Amino acid sequence: MKIAVDAMGGDFAPDEIVKGVELARDNDSSVEFVLYGQTDQINQLLKNKQNISIVQADEVISMEDEPVKAVRQKKNSSLVMAAQAVKDQEADAFFSAGNTGAVLAAGLFVIGRIKGIDRPGLTTTLPVINTENGQFVMLDVGANADTKPANMYQYALMGKFYAENVMHIDNPRIGLLNNGTEADKGDMNHRKVHDLLAENTDLNFVGNVESRDLLNGVADVVVTDGFTGNAVLKGIEGTALAMMKLLKSAVVDGGLKAKLGALMLKDGLKGMANQMDYSKHGGAVLLGLNAPVVKTHGSSKAETVSNTMAQIKVILASGLVEQLKDYVTENKEQLEEIKMTTKK
Amino acid sequence: MKIAVDAMGGDFAPDEIVKGVELARDNDSSVEFVLYGQTDQINQLLKNKQNISIVQADEVISMEDEPVKAVRQKKNSSLVMAAQAVKDQEADAFFSAGNTGAVLAAGLFVIGRIKGIDRPGLTTTLPVINTENGQFVMLDVGANADTKPANMYQYALMGKFYAENVMHIDNPRIGLLNNGTEADKGDMNHRKVHDLLAENTDLNFVGNVESRDLLNGVADVVVTDGFTGNAVLKGIEGTALAMMKLLKSAVVDGGLKAKLGALMLKDGLKGMANQMDYSKHGGAVLLGLNAPVVKTHGSSKAETVSNTMAQIKVILASGLVEQLKDYVTENKEQLEEIKMTTKK
Repeated sequence: MKIAVDAMGGDFAPDEIVKGVELARDNDSSVEFVLYGQTDQINQLLKNKQNISIVQADEVISMEDEPVKAVRQKKNSSLVMAAQAVKDQEADAFFSAGNTGAVLAAGLFVIGRIKGIDRPGLTTTLPVINTENGQFVMLDVGANADTKPANMYQYALMGKFYAENVMHIDNPRIGLLNNGTEADKGDMNHRKVHDLLAENTDLNFVGNVESRDLLNGVADVVVTDGFTGNAVLKGIEGTALAMMKLLKSAVVDGGLKAKLGALMLKDGLKGMANQMDYSKHGGAVLLGLNAPVVKTHGSSKAETVSNTMAQIKVILASGLVEQLKDYVTENKEQLEEIKMTTKK
Repeated sequence: MKIAVDAMGGDFAPDEIVKGVELARDNDSSVEFVLYGQTDQINQLLKNKQNISIVQADEVISMEDEPVKAVRQKKNSSLVMAAQAVKDQEADAFFSAGNTGAVLAAGLFVIGRIKGIDRPGLTTTLPVINTENGQFVMLDVGANADTKPANMYQYALMGKFYAENVMHIDNPRIGLLNNGTEADKGDMNHRKVHDLLAENTDLNFVGNVESRDLLNGVADVVVTDGFTGNAVLKGIEGTALAMMKLLKSAVVDGGLKAKLGALMLKDGLKGMANQMDYSKHGGAVLLGLNAPVVKTHGSSKAETVSNTMAQIKVILASGLVEQLKDYVTENKEQLEEIKMTTKK
């Protein structure tokens, strides 16, 4: 099992990436890593080369680079070289904390889609509040801005396989993010998707769900178009951050009494911050490609990098990609029919 | 100045509606109210009839009623009768805390659109965190599920007039909710809207904004399609509620120390809850109609009802509807051209 690592992507690359890889290696000796990047820098950072090899990459794709252009032009970048290694079957999975758009482009154009899947879906895991380890997945959270009903139908299938294989949820509850829970809610596209999902008896479809109820765990898999999913995810993030800011200013403006109060509440507040810290819950996975492509937050530190490597191992060990391929092959005709009937 | 009030809509109707109207009347004797509903019940609740008249309405539209059907069939409901009074120019504005879909339907089918406005936009006010009274407006948050570029362009105009007239913001910053800040972000529709808004030099268009930044006050008017706007608004609400729940359980699970801590932080936490309490910020306004149509949360109590009446008075006094009508008439050709060129 070998993971191709873009060692130069992210706000704290290569330092925290290298540290994170070593942490992951120390936790699990069954995984090998190939780091793509500046050999000199990486060599200086590495404490121990066991299970870790390095490949020189002369270029770096920055956060400011235009994604598709950068992937096409910077063939010697750490990001593209890592993706190419997966394409060439020199590695089994791809990891980066770099430019999200470039990760999506490299996944799509270098590693490639599973035959029969029309659009990959960016999949993220979010916490269910007031549960020990409750989580749900949501996709697509931004791989595609323009989405057809057939794409969302495929997201539901991918999400189901992810929830079963990686999160070990039996018969996961699949919900469609919509602007009301009634069956006839939504725009034309979402109404079509609702009916497609309701017709497939293989799916444990629980109907439409509203974004108000997501963090309460209303579904295990939340299916959404990439435009809405992206906006809702960022809305959730922004609100959680805003609430933490408000709490902080309540402490600062509150004088000594409030400061003492915060000190006494400290453990509980820390637990709250942890629950809302998405980085703890691993990276976003681009599902529907020929191999796992995983992206963590640009601000990820070593611990998050290491957690994400563990997540990738679970994905690889579960055979998610192979199962999805088999399913798509077996249901080829049905998927084609859905595409044809929902085209316009 | 006369407001037609659906006295039977909302979780606490008619009690809290009647109380709220009396509170508003006590605060401002220049406004008259006509309450539509069960005369007996309302009479029993009313302490003082000054500036308040009652009209018997035999039917009630419930939260469970299918909105469009209910508005067509229950002609004698308090909601439809109040709307009809505005249509017949017996009142200047409409208020309800009832079935949102029915309020939208009554606004659209009974009171009617401003000529030249194709779709009304449901407009809500949200707080900017860590400011004294900072607010922004967002529209459409759910009047329409299927939205064309020309509709969003019109939302920007309506939002601008609302921010100027009702919130007294000079030259309000208008942002387009999108999945990235760059000019070329978004699906086909949002790209078109971006370019339309950028071309209109009358507008202080600040470009695309992301939902992550909304509560930080990135724009005074946030333009969005009703599907995304609805999902983002509910996502913000759900996350704020989830954070409050987490905070509460941090206190409960944290034992005596945490309870003491919370007690010491109490004032600050209360301030936080207030800032995130949307009901304090008045009702949602359906803009683009021939008269102000305002809907408050179903759970509104008297104070919120009274605040919303004050908001309606500001809308009426500002001449918002008339100004919007004039603008649309003056720019008729341009608006028609936008509709034609962005049809597909």
